[in-house]
Amino acid sequence: METYVIFRDIAIILVAAKFCGLAARQLHMPSVVGNIIAGLLIGPCVLNFVQPSDFLSQMAEIGVVLLMFTAGLESDTKEIIRSGPKALAVAASGVIVPLVAGTALFLLFYGQADTQRNLFYEALFIGCILTATSVSITVEALRELGHLKGKVGTTIMSAAIIDDVLGIIVLTLISGLKDPNTSILMVGVNTLAFFVFSAVVGYIIFRCFKWMDAKYPHTRRVPILALAFCMAMSYVAEAYFGIADITGAYLAGLVLSNLHDAPYIERKMDINAYIIFGPLFFASIGLSTDVGDMDSKLMLFTLVFVVVALLAKIVGCGGMARLCGFNGSESLKIGVGMMNRGEVALIVAQKGLALGLLNSMFFTSVIMLILISAIVTPILLKVLYQRDERLGITEE
Amino acid sequence: METYVIFRDIAIILVAAKFCGLAARQLHMPSVVGNIIAGLLIGPCVLNFVQPSDFLSQMAEIGVVLLMFTAGLESDTKEIIRSGPKALAVAASGVIVPLVAGTALFLLFYGQADTQRNLFYEALFIGCILTATSVSITVEALRELGHLKGKVGTTIMSAAIIDDVLGIIVLTLISGLKDPNTSILMVGVNTLAFFVFSAVVGYIIFRCFKWMDAKYPHTRRVPILALAFCMAMSYVAEAYFGIADITGAYLAGLVLSNLHDAPYIERKMDINAYIIFGPLFFASIGLSTDVGDMDSKLMLFTLVFVVVALLAKIVGCGGMARLCGFNGSESLKIGVGMMNRGEVALIVAQKGLALGLLNSMFFTSVIMLILISAIVTPILLKVLYQRDERLGITEE
Repeated sequence: METYVIFRDIAIILVAAKFCGLAARQLHMPSVVGNIIAGLLIGPCVLNFVQPSDFLSQMAEIGVVLLMFTAGLESDTKEIIRSGPKALAVAASGVIVPLVAGTALFLLFYGQADTQRNLFYEALFIGCILTATSVSITVEALRELGHLKGKVGTTIMSAAIIDDVLGIIVLTLISGLKDPNTSILMVGVNTLAFFVFSAVVGYIIFRCFKWMDAKYPHTRRVPILALAFCMAMSYVAEAYFGIADITGAYLAGLVLSNLHDAPYIERKMDINAYIIFGPLFFASIGLSTDVGDMDSKLMLFTLVFVVVALLAKIVGCGGMARLCGFNGSESLKIGVGMMNRGEVALIVAQKGLALGLLNSMFFTSVIMLILISAIVTPILLKVLYQRDERLGITEE
Repeated sequence: METYVIFRDIAIILVAAKFCGLAARQLHMPSVVGNIIAGLLIGPCVLNFVQPSDFLSQMAEIGVVLLMFTAGLESDTKEIIRSGPKALAVAASGVIVPLVAGTALFLLFYGQADTQRNLFYEALFIGCILTATSVSITVEALRELGHLKGKVGTTIMSAAIIDDVLGIIVLTLISGLKDPNTSILMVGVNTLAFFVFSAVVGYIIFRCFKWMDAKYPHTRRVPILALAFCMAMSYVAEAYFGIADITGAYLAGLVLSNLHDAPYIERKMDINAYIIFGPLFFASIGLSTDVGDMDSKLMLFTLVFVVVALLAKIVGCGGMARLCGFNGSESLKIGVGMMNRGEVALIVAQKGLALGLLNSMFFTSVIMLILISAIVTPILLKVLYQRDERLGITEE
């Protein structure tokens, strides 16, 4: 392949992703959905303008790592500690119920295949995809309704942050099991070892950055070295602990999230992500999704998968909120607010594909989940709040 | 190669490039020099931490295109038109003299080889490397001396801008000759055709961007679509006109440089360039430079090459300035101010390597030229201005 072909691919992807992203926003859907549809349109399935290539998948991989690094940077570790046991309980239950439900659903549909061991981990991975809440749509909806700072809103926010950390731990454990020769115990030890390693190295690196940040605030070296740290952690996770690179990237972000300059680093990463790496990642998911594979069984699976995914969060988060003393109406709102899925579900799915734990045909199901949850969540939230207003119930 | 190895490579390159870049700045040298030395240090020549790979060369290629796009965006086409015939004459003479001198020098040293045709174009390419002035060091030096806004300073600035355009035309013509089956006439027609194509398409795209810029100023779509335009122009140049991709990127930048939001686009591109693509490009030059190849002939060539390169600009630009009515002292300052070389020389050299028109061993010569001109230019300028002050000469 001539090098300049990558310029054509990038140009087509950027234009298609931007236009489809804007169209999606016009329809009140997340622009990520537009980006994926752009990938589908220009890919082998429809127009065949761009074919998947090594280069694109490497760029997409960098994109994923950048997105997870940004997610780590954005998370507020002080908020996690402060938010208390209720949010932790809601988040934990909202991770466990979808994990179990997703695993069971997959086994129900595809459990009769013969490669038993891999199958179970494939099922676990489907469950894992369902664990991570994407709170951005909910935040927008709550802000519009004027209830973002209420009791329900803050609980959702805190639970969504903790949810990310728990989701990463689950992903790390499951992806460590990719190799049939490793035992759960070994993966657990590796995961624990990596978290300890990250804590120790992270503390040292954090002190170095804090010093640099104080001495040279807002200089170019801060984001460049932060990116290098993120890349190094991603590499170390994969190469020495057999753990997903995105875990390393997320922890790198978490380590640096308490820096004074964290928003500055995040902004620079964000520009890199949205200008080139992000569109390439989301479009490459569309490129590698084969809609032609969609048989009637997969269609049925997708339908049930979406329903189960949404209900699992309502039951998991809402149920636990009820047990924690929220009233019925509040619990339902918390459950609905947590049911939206987004980028992280795709990142996990992509990881599963790379590890050989997920068939690319299930991308379609994940994309449908993101699409439908993005449409349903804000509508349901609005209905619930309006019903309360009619009944004259005001939030504490 | 496992995908995660790219994370290790990127991490090592970013850290090494940043530290060497900072060290270079401490020694009052351009940080680009530090980046290249970083590549040398971590590459196969010394520590062998990172090996050249397809992925790195593709990232470097994107880096080059981004740098040229930014150069185009930064250039002030109104200034080019306004600056008048004197600056144009100085620039043109400052392109022709080094081109001829460089070509002659190479033929003198390596003219006895038998592959005659290729040899002449190799020689032309060496000349071409010498054409582009890098004005950043001069600007810094003049600003420090308080003479940036004087007659000499503005002439240097205008000539350096025109110099870029002329250099690109020369490069385009020469690189079009890579194929022994093409005639000079065909290359000329192709080059002209591409410039006409760029003017027509550029005008349409410019109108579209102007409309978008007015309707949605400072939105993400502006830089994203600008980057897509740059990539598309790079591809079209190579694929349909047989012209260097960097010509397309530079013209794309030139087209968009008159937008109201041009500085906004430039800032976003700049962040992408300095955070990841730039360091990867400069370090990859170090990676692919083989110092082991340095025999005594090459050392002698390098020495003469540097001297000729510096003198050619003094003679070309200074001489023409004298002919245009500047006095002797002013002409000398203009010549000295124009003699600094930088990124563009490297970009051209990299292009020559990719086209098979340049042996990688000459990278060493180009790097030495950048290094030495960066050290000598500010010192000489200071000496010249101080002498004038002692003699009581003040600039108009």
